Amino acid sequence: MQILLTNDDGITAPGIQALWNELTSIAEIIVVAPDSERSATSQAITVHQPIRVDKHCIGHPNICAWRIGGTPTDCVKMAIESLLDQRPDLVVSGINQGPNLGTDVLYSGTVSAAIEAVLHGIPAIAISLDSWGNSDFQPAARFAKKLVGYMERNSLPPDTLLNVNVPGVKMAKFHGVQITKLGVRQYDNTFDKRTDPRGRTYYWMGGKVIDSANDQDTDVVALKSGKISVTPIHFDLTNYAIMDMLKGWNISC
Amino acid sequence: MQILLTNDDGITAPGIQALWNELTSIAEIIVVAPDSERSATSQAITVHQPIRVDKHCIGHPNICAWRIGGTPTDCVKMAIESLLDQRPDLVVSGINQGPNLGTDVLYSGTVSAAIEAVLHGIPAIAISLDSWGNSDFQPAARFAKKLVGYMERNSLPPDTLLNVNVPGVKMAKFHGVQITKLGVRQYDNTFDKRTDPRGRTYYWMGGKVIDSANDQDTDVVALKSGKISVTPIHFDLTNYAIMDMLKGWNISC
Repeated sequence: MQILLTNDDGITAPGIQALWNELTSIAEIIVVAPDSERSATSQAITVHQPIRVDKHCIGHPNICAWRIGGTPTDCVKMAIESLLDQRPDLVVSGINQGPNLGTDVLYSGTVSAAIEAVLHGIPAIAISLDSWGNSDFQPAARFAKKLVGYMERNSLPPDTLLNVNVPGVKMAKFHGVQITKLGVRQYDNTFDKRTDPRGRTYYWMGGKVIDSANDQDTDVVALKSGKISVTPIHFDLTNYAIMDMLKGWNISC
Repeated sequence: MQILLTNDDGITAPGIQALWNELTSIAEIIVVAPDSERSATSQAITVHQPIRVDKHCIGHPNICAWRIGGTPTDCVKMAIESLLDQRPDLVVSGINQGPNLGTDVLYSGTVSAAIEAVLHGIPAIAISLDSWGNSDFQPAARFAKKLVGYMERNSLPPDTLLNVNVPGVKMAKFHGVQITKLGVRQYDNTFDKRTDPRGRTYYWMGGKVIDSANDQDTDVVALKSGKISVTPIHFDLTNYAIMDMLKGWNISC
């Protein structure tokens, strides 16, 4: 089995290191990851400038790694369409520093890389840790390995990936695993206005999560309850439910 | 009625100019758009660097405009959360140079800006022209104005925007309007490998559209048939249909 690893925190981030250390015991690992942090890049692709690609030594003699001057989605595209001799059997994206819950997944480079894999017909997992700062990624990496086993024994529809969020606690403190739907994450987005030394204004995008009402079966509530959330995600944005209603508008040109 | 305009081709692009010229007759127009082209930036937001914001003269005395050193999604966020005194009644994103069909919408800055508006509870239209180069955006702008009227007389669910693709022909040659679902767009993504003057390699992401099999009711086929496609798009990526199956995997930690 060959697993392609990527992330949006960059190839030197501890989350992806925890993944390759754990998964190398069950699969051949290939790493194709951004050269620096590319959080919140969503499914952006680099089409207006060239993309740098370097072979990269990660200190593991058995692991082949590339460092990409691009987004997580660039990494998956390049790996599958240009760098690898064969298509990987699975793509794992992460482990992200910080959760990717609810509507946040729309901005997430981690989740978008997994969507890109599924667009290429390759099963994928996006995995994130609900912790900031000096985190222990080992429990989440172990769960990733376990989940790979479940994915080998079962099968997902070809348009679906699994988005996983793991509590930032020791494994013994996990309150189980819950299959969830995406919840709502709202932010109080304070744009912080400042003035540079030349007198010109600029803004920093800040933002604190607001406690939104969320159902029990959402990823937001599951994670808050100490559970690992596993959310099946697909990429068809059509709102089929209102197509007939829209036809009733009788739009003409 | 107040309409916020944005795009991903940048504030000087002819597509957004055609929109403000047309829509200024039916609404107060505010423009908050990127300072340069930001195509294929998906729903990326700028969190790792400051965002420049300037008041910008677009040559229309009645239109207030800001030029943003950020992505289309940054523009919508900043407009609603920081720059405008009141929430706009509608956001129109475009007119994009080139179509945004099927799975392409995942990468589209134009469509993502409209998704961002809907995330803020504001109705939105993303509109793109199936033409490259020296294009006439007037027919598409006129259709946008007409569609605004339909949206005033009817209402969409709060989680849904309209993604519109207009054929690159004169209005008299339109073959009508079709309510569509997103189709499939596949690319033959040739990564073009080159060497810079210092001997280091880099790649350009290229890619030509492959003719994929698509149903009659897709945006891809509608546009190809000379029709304007109108696709209802929502942002809930949960694949509800497989949640029960996944529960049957009995995943433990």
